[in-house]
Amino acid sequence: MTASPMIVPLPDLLIDPAVRAALAEDLGRAGDVTAALLPEGQGIEAVFAARADGRVAGLACARLAIAALDPAARFEVVAADGADVARGGVIARVAGDGRAILSAERVALNFLGRLCGVATLTRAYVRAVEGTKARIVCTRKTTPGLRALEKYAVRCGGATNHRYGLDDAILIKDNHVAACGGVGKALERARAAAGHLMKIEVEVDSLEQLDEAIPFAPDVIMLDNFSLDDLVEAVGRVDGRIPLEASGGVNLSTVRDIARTGVDAISVGALTHSAPVLDIGLDAV
Amino acid sequence: MTASPMIVPLPDLLIDPAVRAALAEDLGRAGDVTAALLPEGQGIEAVFAARADGRVAGLACARLAIAALDPAARFEVVAADGADVARGGVIARVAGDGRAILSAERVALNFLGRLCGVATLTRAYVRAVEGTKARIVCTRKTTPGLRALEKYAVRCGGATNHRYGLDDAILIKDNHVAACGGVGKALERARAAAGHLMKIEVEVDSLEQLDEAIPFAPDVIMLDNFSLDDLVEAVGRVDGRIPLEASGGVNLSTVRDIARTGVDAISVGALTHSAPVLDIGLDAV
Amino acid sequence: MTASPMIVPLPDLLIDPAVRAALAEDLGRAGDVTAALLPEGQGIEAVFAARADGRVAGLACARLAIAALDPAARFEVVAADGADVARGGVIARVAGDGRAILSAERVALNFLGRLCGVATLTRAYVRAVEGTKARIVCTRKTTPGLRALEKYAVRCGGATNHRYGLDDAILIKDNHVAACGGVGKALERARAAAGHLMKIEVEVDSLEQLDEAIPFAPDVIMLDNFSLDDLVEAVGRVDGRIPLEASGGVNLSTVRDIARTGVDAISVGALTHSAPVLDIGLDAV
Amino acid sequence: MTASPMIVPLPDLLIDPAVRAALAEDLGRAGDVTAALLPEGQGIEAVFAARADGRVAGLACARLAIAALDPAARFEVVAADGADVARGGVIARVAGDGRAILSAERVALNFLGRLCGVATLTRAYVRAVEGTKARIVCTRKTTPGLRALEKYAVRCGGATNHRYGLDDAILIKDNHVAACGGVGKALERARAAAGHLMKIEVEVDSLEQLDEAIPFAPDVIMLDNFSLDDLVEAVGRVDGRIPLEASGGVNLSTVRDIARTGVDAISVGALTHSAPVLDIGLDAV
Amino acid sequence: MTASPMIVPLPDLLIDPAVRAALAEDLGRAGDVTAALLPEGQGIEAVFAARADGRVAGLACARLAIAALDPAARFEVVAADGADVARGGVIARVAGDGRAILSAERVALNFLGRLCGVATLTRAYVRAVEGTKARIVCTRKTTPGLRALEKYAVRCGGATNHRYGLDDAILIKDNHVAACGGVGKALERARAAAGHLMKIEVEVDSLEQLDEAIPFAPDVIMLDNFSLDDLVEAVGRVDGRIPLEASGGVNLSTVRDIARTGVDAISVGALTHSAPVLDIGLDAV
Amino acid sequence: MTASPMIVPLPDLLIDPAVRAALAEDLGRAGDVTAALLPEGQGIEAVFAARADGRVAGLACARLAIAALDPAARFEVVAADGADVARGGVIARVAGDGRAILSAERVALNFLGRLCGVATLTRAYVRAVEGTKARIVCTRKTTPGLRALEKYAVRCGGATNHRYGLDDAILIKDNHVAACGGVGKALERARAAAGHLMKIEVEVDSLEQLDEAIPFAPDVIMLDNFSLDDLVEAVGRVDGRIPLEASGGVNLSTVRDIARTGVDAISVGALTHSAPVLDIGLDAV
Repeated sequence: MTASPMIVPLPDLLIDPAVRAALAEDLGRAGDVTAALLPEGQGIEAVFAARADGRVAGLACARLAIAALDPAARFEVVAADGADVARGGVIARVAGDGRAILSAERVALNFLGRLCGVATLTRAYVRAVEGTKARIVCTRKTTPGLRALEKYAVRCGGATNHRYGLDDAILIKDNHVAACGGVGKALERARAAAGHLMKIEVEVDSLEQLDEAIPFAPDVIMLDNFSLDDLVEAVGRVDGRIPLEASGGVNLSTVRDIARTGVDAISVGALTHSAPVLDIGLDAV
Repeated sequence: MTASPMIVPLPDLLIDPAVRAALAEDLGRAGDVTAALLPEGQGIEAVFAARADGRVAGLACARLAIAALDPAARFEVVAADGADVARGGVIARVAGDGRAILSAERVALNFLGRLCGVATLTRAYVRAVEGTKARIVCTRKTTPGLRALEKYAVRCGGATNHRYGLDDAILIKDNHVAACGGVGKALERARAAAGHLMKIEVEVDSLEQLDEAIPFAPDVIMLDNFSLDDLVEAVGRVDGRIPLEASGGVNLSTVRDIARTGVDAISVGALTHSAPVLDIGLDAV
Repeated sequence: MTASPMIVPLPDLLIDPAVRAALAEDLGRAGDVTAALLPEGQGIEAVFAARADGRVAGLACARLAIAALDPAARFEVVAADGADVARGGVIARVAGDGRAILSAERVALNFLGRLCGVATLTRAYVRAVEGTKARIVCTRKTTPGLRALEKYAVRCGGATNHRYGLDDAILIKDNHVAACGGVGKALERARAAAGHLMKIEVEVDSLEQLDEAIPFAPDVIMLDNFSLDDLVEAVGRVDGRIPLEASGGVNLSTVRDIARTGVDAISVGALTHSAPVLDIGLDAV
Repeated sequence: MTASPMIVPLPDLLIDPAVRAALAEDLGRAGDVTAALLPEGQGIEAVFAARADGRVAGLACARLAIAALDPAARFEVVAADGADVARGGVIARVAGDGRAILSAERVALNFLGRLCGVATLTRAYVRAVEGTKARIVCTRKTTPGLRALEKYAVRCGGATNHRYGLDDAILIKDNHVAACGGVGKALERARAAAGHLMKIEVEVDSLEQLDEAIPFAPDVIMLDNFSLDDLVEAVGRVDGRIPLEASGGVNLSTVRDIARTGVDAISVGALTHSAPVLDIGLDAV
Repeated sequence: MTASPMIVPLPDLLIDPAVRAALAEDLGRAGDVTAALLPEGQGIEAVFAARADGRVAGLACARLAIAALDPAARFEVVAADGADVARGGVIARVAGDGRAILSAERVALNFLGRLCGVATLTRAYVRAVEGTKARIVCTRKTTPGLRALEKYAVRCGGATNHRYGLDDAILIKDNHVAACGGVGKALERARAAAGHLMKIEVEVDSLEQLDEAIPFAPDVIMLDNFSLDDLVEAVGRVDGRIPLEASGGVNLSTVRDIARTGVDAISVGALTHSAPVLDIGLDAV
Repeated sequence: MTASPMIVPLPDLLIDPAVRAALAEDLGRAGDVTAALLPEGQGIEAVFAARADGRVAGLACARLAIAALDPAARFEVVAADGADVARGGVIARVAGDGRAILSAERVALNFLGRLCGVATLTRAYVRAVEGTKARIVCTRKTTPGLRALEKYAVRCGGATNHRYGLDDAILIKDNHVAACGGVGKALERARAAAGHLMKIEVEVDSLEQLDEAIPFAPDVIMLDNFSLDDLVEAVGRVDGRIPLEASGGVNLSTVRDIARTGVDAISVGALTHSAPVLDIGLDAV
C-alpha cells in the first residue's frame, strides 16, 4: 500500500468503516439523485490529478470508497503514499461504473485531499529541519474519528508519531505535577504504575523544572514554550542522557532555529489541526 | 443551545455518538494512564478560553465530552454558539472530577477548535460580502464523519448551507450533462425524476451553457469559474428569474468583487476543508 | 438494479446493513437449527414467485440476504424492480447452497413481500389518478429503520417522494404557525433560515390561511383536510403560481376526485404505513 | 411497563437502539429545520389520542423517542400496553420542550401506530376464537429489524408467540423432509441434535404425512393448508397426544371455523406482515 | 464447516463481527508496527499445530481473521471442527501475505485456543459419562460476547446446549418460586404465559419440592445440588415421565457417579467458564 | 472506582458497550421470560458474595449491568477492585427492581467471575515472586473483545501490563528477524521507524542471539524458553543495562525460580487465557 517500508501501513480493516460511514453520510436516505441521470451501466475512466504540488497519502481511502460502490472497478496507483506529486501530476487511475464512481467521487476526494494536505504540510516541516538531528512529531490534536489516518499521513509526510492516545504513554503535564506535589513525586508515581513497555514523558516549563526532572530519568522531557536560548541551555544540561522534545510556538518560520538548538524532537499540532487540503480533482479521460 | 434562533441547533442525539467515538479513540484500551496520577475524587475548575479572536461553535461537543466521563460535571456556557469571542475571552466554565476533565480535555478541544475554526473563517467571508445581496454557502467538501457538525458551524458563522448530501437536491454537473446529451435534456430528466420538495441546480461553465439552461427554469444555476465580467453578464441575462450561485476561485481577496456582480450565493469549499483551528485552551482556575 | 432510469436506485451499501441485521435477528445465537438437518454441501435451485398480481421492489434485499450466507450463490432477476408481475409469475431465480438459501429465505421474503406490497399499493394510487396532473407522493409515516427502502419502493410504484426527513425541507404546520404568530411570520422566519437549495412548504387548514400564505410565495402549499369544493376553490385562487398538495382523507375511493380538483400532488400515508404484504413464495425447482 | 403480568415486557435496553436509529433516520444531517422556528425553550403539553378503537402496544417506544430529545420531558401513561382504547381516547400525556416533542412526534407515532396496529389486529383474531381451545400464534413474517417489538405487540394483543427465530426451535418443513428422506428420518435426526430445552415441530401436508409423524412424537405438528374436514380428522387421529397447529389460509372469516376443529394453535402471518396502522395523533392541549 | 452433521454450524455472518472487532482491538490505532519490518509482499506458509491433545472447534474464526487482513490467503482445514487432534497434529494450513498472517496470528490463536479448550474439556465430560443415558449440557455461564461461539464449541465437544439465553425457555428458580408463592403456582403462571414452542424447566432443591413439581408436568426438572442418594430417589419417583437434569457440584471426579443415577442431563458451568485454553501454535513451514 | 491509586481505572465509557452487548446477548429477542413471573415493581436486596478466596476486579461491570436494566438501583461496593476477599465475604450490595436484578444477574456474574478469576490468578503469581525484583506481566493472549477489561484485572491482581496491542510497542520475533536478515538489522530498521515514545523489544532464543542484540540497545530483551542456567547467564551478561523479560514455560511451580535469576519481568499467558472463574454468587437477603 505504501512506497516506503518505513511507513507502517494501515490495514484496510481499520479504514473501511470510516470510508463506508462517510459514504453513508453523503448518500443519505435516497442515494445519489443526480447520478441516476446517467444511463445504467455506462462506464467511466478518470484520473485523480493533483492541482498543486504535494505529498501523497490516503490512496486506500479513495480505492475503498470506489470499491464500496463498484466492487469491480479498477484502481491503479500511479504515485503511491509517501511519494511526491507535482501540480498536474496523476496520482491514480480509475475505471468502472459511471454512476458508482461519480457517487463516490466527493468522499474519495474529501479523504484524499485532507490526508495529502497533512502529508504535504508535514513534508514542509521535515524539509525545514533537514540536516539537524531533530525529528518532527505530531500531537493528539487530530480530527475526531480520523486519528489513525492522520497519524498515518504524518508518517507519509516523513515525520514520526507521538503517542497515539491517552493510554500508550504517560505524559505528565502541569496539572499532574501540581496534583502530585512536584515533578519528582509525579515521576516516581508514574514509574511505579507504568509497565515495562510504556514510556514516560514529562513536560517542563522552565530550566528549574528541568533540573528537578533530570535525576528521575524520564524517557523523554518536553520543553514547553522555551526560548531559543533556554532550549540551548537545556540541551547542554541534559547532554544527551534524555531525549528532549520542544513544543509550543512552532511554525514554519521558527522550526529550523528550534531544530538547531539540538533538541531531538519538535512536536507540531498544526500538522493535523490546521493543514489546508491539497487540491485534487477527479478528471474524466 | 445557540445564541440566535436562526441557527438550527443539532440535537445531542446526533452529536453524542461522534463525541463518544472520539473519546474511545483517545482513551484506547487502557484509559488515561496519566490522569490516574491524580488523587481519586480530586475536583477541578477550569475555563475554555480563546487564545485568538473568533466565532464560537460546537459547545455541545465539549459539554458532551466532559459529561461522558463525569455525568455530574457542571458546564456553564459564557459565549454561546454563534457569538463572537475576543482573544482571552472565556467561552465556557466547567467544574467536576479532575481525572475526568483532564481525560476529556483534548477531545473537547479537538471538536471545539475545529468547529470554531470553521465558524470563524465563515464569519470572515460573511463580513467580506456585507452590504451585497450575496449569501455565503458551504459545500460537500467536509471532513468525513463530521458533515453535520461542520455544516452547523457554517451556520454559526453566519452563512447558510448548500445541500447536505447527494440525496437532498439534484446538482447537474458536466459529466451528467454529457451523459444526458445536453443541459436541456439533463434538466428535463431531472424534472421528471424529482419530487416536489426537491430543488434542481445545474452547473454551467459558459454563457452559452447559461442560455441553454434558462428556458428549463432550474431552481438554481451555478456559474462555475466565471470571470467577473461573465458573472455580471450572467446576472444581467437572468435578470432575477433564477437564483445564481458563483463557485470556483473564491477566496477572501476575491469574494467581495464576486458578490458585487449581483449573484445570489457564493459557495466556498475552504470554509470546511481548509479552516485553521481556532486556538482554544482549557485553563485551570 | 432497476427497470426504469427514473427510479433512483439505492446502492447496496445502504441496504446491506439492514439485511445483515435482519439475518442476525433471525439466526439468533445458534444459527438455523433446522437447516443443519440438510446434508452439508447439498445444492438447491428455487424461484421467487408471486402468489398475487403486483409491482416488484426490493430485489436487492433478497439478493443480499442470500449472498450474505452463500457468497457464491447465483441470483438472476426475471422481473426487475419497477416491473409488474402477475400471479404465479417468477420474479427471480436462485441457485446455491441448500442450507444457506433455506436459512436466508424468510428474511429475503420479509423484505421482498413488504417492499413489493408498498410498490403495489402505490401503483394502485398512481393508476387511480392517471390522466390528471396530480402526482402521488409519500410521507414520513414509514417503518422505523426502513425509510430509505420504503421511499424507494414508492418510486418503484410510480410515485415520487416527499421530503426524506426533518432536515431536507421545511414543512410548517399548525404548531409552528401558532408559535411564530401567524402564517406570514412563520414563512418569513423560514425564508431567512433556509438555504438556497431547501424548499419551504406550509400547511393550511382553510381558505383564509391559504390567502395569508400566498403573498409569501412558499415553494409548496399543503391543503390539509380540505373538502373537494375547497380544493377547487384553492386551485382557482392560486392559479398555478404555487404547487398545491392535498392531504388528509385520501384513500383509493377518494383519490381520483381529489386529483380532478387540479392539485399538483396528493400525499398518502397509507402507501408506507398500511400496505399489506405482497404474497411471494420461494419454490424449489 | 405493561398492564397485565402475562405480557412479558421488553426492557428499554432492547428498544432504545431502534428508537434512536429511527430518530437519526428522521433527523438526518441537519436536525429538524422546522422545529427551529419555535422559540428556544418554549414548552408544550400534548396527548397521544386514538383516532380509532384499538389495543395499545409500544408506549415505551414513544416514551423513549421523546426522552431521547428531551430527557426532562414528562410522560404519563393513561392506557397501558395491553389495554383497550376507544376512538378519541387518550393513551398518554406528555409535557416538555416544544422543539424536542415536535421533532420526536413522527417517530413516536410511527412506532406506536404500527405496534398498536399489530396488537389491534391480533385482538381481533383472539376474539374470533374465544370459547375454543385454540390459541392464536404469530410467525417469523415480521418487519426486518422490529421482530422483538412486533412479537411483543402480539402478546399485547392477547396471542402467544411462535418461535422467535431460526435458532430456538426446530421446525421441519417439506424441503428438510425431502433432504432427509422422509418425515421419520428427519425427526430422528432432529431429536439427536436438539438439546433438552428445544422443541421440535414438523410440518405435514396430508393425513398420510401426519400418520408418519405421530410415532416419532414431535413436540408440535403443524397441519399446513388442511381442509376443515382434514383438520377434524387430524385432531381425531392425534387424540390429544401431540399439540396441533393449523396454518395456511387463515383470515378473520375462516379462523373461527378452524378453531372449532379442535386444533391447539392457529398461526397467522398477517398479524405482523399486513396489520394496518392504528391511527393515533399527538394533540397539543 | 464442520465434520459432523450433528453439529449445527454457525454462519460466518454471526462470527465475522466478533473476529473483526478482535482484530481492531489488537491492531489499535496504528496497525502492526512490527509486521511492517517485513518486506512488502513477502509470502508465508504456516500450519496451525496443536501442542497438546484436544478436540477442534472454531476454525472459522481463524480463517476469517486471516481473510480479514489478506482476502487472497489460502486456508486449508486438516482437522475439522469436532475432530480430535493429537499433540503435534496439524489442524490447518495457511498461505498468504506475510505481514497479514503475522498480524492476524494472535487473534486467530486467541479464538482457536479458547474454543478448542472448551471443546476439549467438554469431550472429557462426555467421555466420562459414556455408556450412561446422561447428556452433558452447558449453561449460560459463558464469556460475555462469545456465547454463540462457546455454545458451538460445546457442540463440537459432543455435548448439547441448554437454553441460549433468558428468552428461549423458562427456567424457574428459587426466587421466582418464592415470588409466586410456591412451585405449583409458578408453574401454572409459566404455562399460561409460554408459547407452544417454549419449554418450561423448574429447579427444585429437595425431594419435597420435586413432589410438588411433578403434578404440573414441567418439561424438565432441574435437581440442584442433590446428593447421589437423592438423585437416585428422584429418578425413581419421576420414573421417566419428565426429563431430569442434575446440576451443582459437578466435576470430572463426580460426573460419572451422577450420570449413573439415571438422570437425563447434567449441566456443567465449567465447560465455558473455566476451560483452560488448548495450546496451539502457528508454525512457519 | 478502585481501591489503589496505582490501578489505572477504566472509564465506564469503555466498559458500558461490552456490558450492554452481553445483556442483549442474554436477553435475546423476547427479554427474560422467567423474570416476568415476578410481580411488577417487586423489589429485591441481594449481595454479591465470594464462594472462594480471591482478589476483586470488575465491579463496574456488575454495577453497569444492573443499572442498564434498573437505572434507579442502588449498588454499594464493599470490597473494591484490587481488594482481597475471603470465602463467604461480601463484595457488593445491591437493591432495586426484582425483575431487573434477576435479569441482569448472570451477565453481572459472568463479568465479575471472570475478571476476579484473572485477578486472583495474577495475585498468586505476584505473591510467588515476592521479594525478588521480577515483575509479573501479562500478554496479548486475552479473550477476544475483553482485552481492556482483562488487562485491567491483571492490574487489580498486582501485576503490570505488557503492550496493549500490535500498535503500541515493537516486539521483534523470530519471523521478523529472519525476514530482516538478523537481529541487528531488524533492530536498526525498528529504531528508524519507531517514534520517540515507542519502545522496542526483541525476542531472543539463545545466548548467541542475546549477544547480537545487546549492542543495539533495545528497550527490552525477551528471553524465550531459556533454561534457568541460561537466564542467570543472560542476566550476568546484560548486567543491568537493558531490562530482561523471561517468557515460556512459566507456571506457579516454576515462576519463583525464574524470578530468582534476576530477570526484570516474567510474562505469563495463563493470567488471561486460562484463569478459572472465581465462584461468586448473588444471594438475596
